[in-house]
Amino acid sequence: MSDHIRIVLVNTTHPGNIGGVARAMKNMGLNDLCLVSPKCFPHPDADARASGATDVLEQAQVVDNLDEALADCELVFGTSARERHIPWPLVNPRELAAIAAPLKGKARVAILFGREDRGLTNEELQRCHHHVHIPAVETFSSLNIAAAVQVITYELRMAEVAEEQAARPQWGTDWDIELAPQRELELMFEHLERTLVKIDFLDPDNPRQLMPRLRRLLQRAVPDKVEVNVLRGILTAMEKQVAQPQRGEGDD
Amino acid sequence: MSDHIRIVLVNTTHPGNIGGVARAMKNMGLNDLCLVSPKCFPHPDADARASGATDVLEQAQVVDNLDEALADCELVFGTSARERHIPWPLVNPRELAAIAAPLKGKARVAILFGREDRGLTNEELQRCHHHVHIPAVETFSSLNIAAAVQVITYELRMAEVAEEQAARPQWGTDWDIELAPQRELELMFEHLERTLVKIDFLDPDNPRQLMPRLRRLLQRAVPDKVEVNVLRGILTAMEKQVAQPQRGEGDD
Repeated sequence: MSDHIRIVLVNTTHPGNIGGVARAMKNMGLNDLCLVSPKCFPHPDADARASGATDVLEQAQVVDNLDEALADCELVFGTSARERHIPWPLVNPRELAAIAAPLKGKARVAILFGREDRGLTNEELQRCHHHVHIPAVETFSSLNIAAAVQVITYELRMAEVAEEQAARPQWGTDWDIELAPQRELELMFEHLERTLVKIDFLDPDNPRQLMPRLRRLLQRAVPDKVEVNVLRGILTAMEKQVAQPQRGEGDD
Repeated sequence: MSDHIRIVLVNTTHPGNIGGVARAMKNMGLNDLCLVSPKCFPHPDADARASGATDVLEQAQVVDNLDEALADCELVFGTSARERHIPWPLVNPRELAAIAAPLKGKARVAILFGREDRGLTNEELQRCHHHVHIPAVETFSSLNIAAAVQVITYELRMAEVAEEQAARPQWGTDWDIELAPQRELELMFEHLERTLVKIDFLDPDNPRQLMPRLRRLLQRAVPDKVEVNVLRGILTAMEKQVAQPQRGEGDD
């Protein structure tokens, strides 16, 4: 839970967006939502889009001005388009997370999101320590406000679970079966080669690159013990077909 | 522009979500949207939520089934909750971007998003090389579909912007042979299943988890065209043993 992060929405017009923001926050483990004079809230559209995050909406503070929203916060980020009159310390969402996540238990951090049509005013942006910009394409750079909250809260969540993520092998930590040791893999490849010869697919006098290709393919997948056993079972079933040809004539 | 990335929405119910997806895609420089039998599309709610990304909606392909959506894709990711019966290669959105972004100009990548209420079926998930999981909190883990697309396309955009050289797919970017398109892979799996039945290894009345296990193993390796042809050659040689048992008795 990033309970030191407050999401502040300034003069939001569409209640559906407020609901979408609440859902995005709860998905990523945030619950401190502050609404600065929203146009209409509470509203059924907000509850509908929140789909299960109504607790975040119910706990939301509704205030009249930005001072009240920021009074007890130590660090403030404001979302903004890149081009502004006065240059300001500008970070992307990942850099924001790198700064804000470690402050858990040390400081309260507010992240401001502006109006659907005009964003934050220059005065509001100048209340911020940093500006945060989501690197959208220049030609179509305005994200939906709930989508913007989702991206930033996702980065906060990623920072929170970072160690776990880095430790994980590409096929997932909770793989169900032990990987096959090399000797089992080698026995399987020997079995495969014998069988391919028996079924006249591999010519021992002219093996070409067949076995290296099959090694490259299967080793790339890093097979587990059960997978190796399944492959050996298939090879044994193939050998039966060769050894006892009559087995091929019916399934009885 | 990540024009090698296709976003595939399976049986989406709410047209508003399709519009939200189109906007998220355009914000992050994507334009290839494919809808697998959406409940109602086109629809004014989709246009409304797209707010300016109507071009993405107009260019969207609408298809009847997943095969059509994936036919010309070489690499497929499926969004999923973490807990599944058979663990599958699992990545987070950042790892997805590290794999998919460098494939620009080399391969077409599909990312599947399931139904609002039930996500993707196990069968659909078994069509995927990797599963991608957005690390939401366990107790409230279901993101809105447009929010999920926003997070994943944001990571793709960040990878593009950062030109992450470290990001390399596990099989190497300069692979010598083209990767096999999905339709070739599916034909190979059908051939494999038929052959395993013929050699009495797979019982059609009690298939258990055999085909999913073999899919998981082979898709993890992301086979190239030659490898798929080699596998089909082996299957054909096996079938010959069953069809013409006497071939098993000698090499003449």
